[in-house]
Amino acid sequence: METIRIALYGVGAMGARIGRSLLKKEGVEVVGAIDVDESKIGKDLGEALDINRLLDVKVADDPDDVLSKANVDVVIHSTQSYLRQAYPQIASAINHQANVISTCEELSYPYIAEPELAHRLDELARNNGVTVLGTGINPGFLMDTLVITFTCVCTRIDQIRVMRVMNAATRREPFQRKIGAGLTVDEFNERLRVEAITGHVGLAESASMIANALKWKLDRIDVQPITPVIAQVPVESQVIKVETGQVAGLHQSVKCIKDGKEVITLDFQAYLGAEEEYDAITINGVPNITEKIAPCIHGDHGTVAIVVNSIPKVINAPPGLMTMKDMPVPSAVTEDMRAYLD
Amino acid sequence: METIRIALYGVGAMGARIGRSLLKKEGVEVVGAIDVDESKIGKDLGEALDINRLLDVKVADDPDDVLSKANVDVVIHSTQSYLRQAYPQIASAINHQANVISTCEELSYPYIAEPELAHRLDELARNNGVTVLGTGINPGFLMDTLVITFTCVCTRIDQIRVMRVMNAATRREPFQRKIGAGLTVDEFNERLRVEAITGHVGLAESASMIANALKWKLDRIDVQPITPVIAQVPVESQVIKVETGQVAGLHQSVKCIKDGKEVITLDFQAYLGAEEEYDAITINGVPNITEKIAPCIHGDHGTVAIVVNSIPKVINAPPGLMTMKDMPVPSAVTEDMRAYLD
Repeated sequence: METIRIALYGVGAMGARIGRSLLKKEGVEVVGAIDVDESKIGKDLGEALDINRLLDVKVADDPDDVLSKANVDVVIHSTQSYLRQAYPQIASAINHQANVISTCEELSYPYIAEPELAHRLDELARNNGVTVLGTGINPGFLMDTLVITFTCVCTRIDQIRVMRVMNAATRREPFQRKIGAGLTVDEFNERLRVEAITGHVGLAESASMIANALKWKLDRIDVQPITPVIAQVPVESQVIKVETGQVAGLHQSVKCIKDGKEVITLDFQAYLGAEEEYDAITINGVPNITEKIAPCIHGDHGTVAIVVNSIPKVINAPPGLMTMKDMPVPSAVTEDMRAYLD
Repeated sequence: METIRIALYGVGAMGARIGRSLLKKEGVEVVGAIDVDESKIGKDLGEALDINRLLDVKVADDPDDVLSKANVDVVIHSTQSYLRQAYPQIASAINHQANVISTCEELSYPYIAEPELAHRLDELARNNGVTVLGTGINPGFLMDTLVITFTCVCTRIDQIRVMRVMNAATRREPFQRKIGAGLTVDEFNERLRVEAITGHVGLAESASMIANALKWKLDRIDVQPITPVIAQVPVESQVIKVETGQVAGLHQSVKCIKDGKEVITLDFQAYLGAEEEYDAITINGVPNITEKIAPCIHGDHGTVAIVVNSIPKVINAPPGLMTMKDMPVPSAVTEDMRAYLD
């Protein structure tokens, strides 16, 4: 069988990590790379990935040019968090009969934010005989797919509570900046106001995916305002120092209300100096479930893994727009990737 | 849409629990019951389930008679741990065009113990246009499906270790007897020798399911001998007293060897007086994963749930013999069961 042919749509921090991970796998090759960054266009992908060899693949900014020549099986799309911005890029990949796996957060469960675009993507994918999947560690796994998985051992569910607490000091500098670490509270609130801080994108998507898997008709989803986590003592990472009283990071949550009761709560905290990093799921029901992953799963590493591991599953899947809850039980690709194809 | 029609094949401890759980669900009804127990045959199912009402369903011992009249969508089969014994029962259900969900431990991944029977079941199910699934909490979820699910966040996996530690004092008396609680060490070893104690069935099945999901070619699966857990202090449950030096329960494990290295270890302990009950998964790889459910998930409650929750998924699935790893992400049924049908 021929190797599985991949194009990277987006060679930023995440796309480059995914690309480097793919180069270590057997049975798969990266045959195209698309990015709008002037500093990367025209370079060999090996340079863009910052590895010490050339790959004989040029980074280009014209997706139609790349995709019409490269005969791509799967496009790995990692450029935008919001589907409205990502839509034309994903649509162009579909129009070239490529399956798409995207880290676009809203695409993980697009029926809330962009139902019309979700419908169009599904139709476009079916017409082109390809599968489109939004995934990642969060949204895509820790606060939705894994939670749904645990519900299968329950005969009754009263309330679901999911917490993700990250020590941002262990993450990339852009992530630390994105959560406001090192700002004063006033600066943080001003950046919130002008949407320079948007926080984690995907909590409402994760909550909706859980509710849909359970066929719960919600009264509403309450997205709580983003609030700063204030440093109680000085904390620092390799790149940012935070004085007492300054912002160490942020706190976000969503609550799903059903029949007047809070039935799903997703709580996300990312700040410098978190004493314990963990992912925890609590289900109050029959039976009760108390589960914890500690330390929490590193976002970048986990997203790279779940994207790469989804490649054979997306090729195997029927055409259309899928979400993680509709896919087979997820699993790792550690051998030649072609061994996982049906 | 009409209600989903279920027949119970086996109304023992597990079948009765599943039956009682089904009676609390909407959109589903129990329309048949099969058992060989003389004390149940001819009785109303309500009596056999020990509930205070009649169900207008008689427990009968002739499966062909029950299944030819009842127009059953799904047979819930819970009679035997070994597929060789369960095979004719499952085959009769398939021959009546019923989907089958079975707690038969070997059926959770039958390709190791009974590859020929697995092949025949798959062919029979396809010919009859129905789906057959072996499931339960263990095997079926905690030491296989859930482990496979976690591998999806890894780009490299060096070793997987799964532990299940149960305090048997919280379980049914037959379970406590089954693990040898209260015996002397000599009695325990003698019962092992004559196979009056067989321990937990399914570790090799769980390990094989993980290896297959990962497409790992194993050198071998080492099933370790069952050993007694000796009480270091007196312990007791409501029904059994164990003196110091007597058997409190048992310890079992399997190890999977690949390229000369131990890559999967499943470790199962069930004994009176276990201080902490938990289910733990550790993956050494990139990234490392350390996960724990504490207390452990109660076997009977969890099996009832996963069997009932699998009903719409089995109806939705394509024909043939399936294992949990091939099914969509598992999830709970908390609303009218018909809402979960495709």
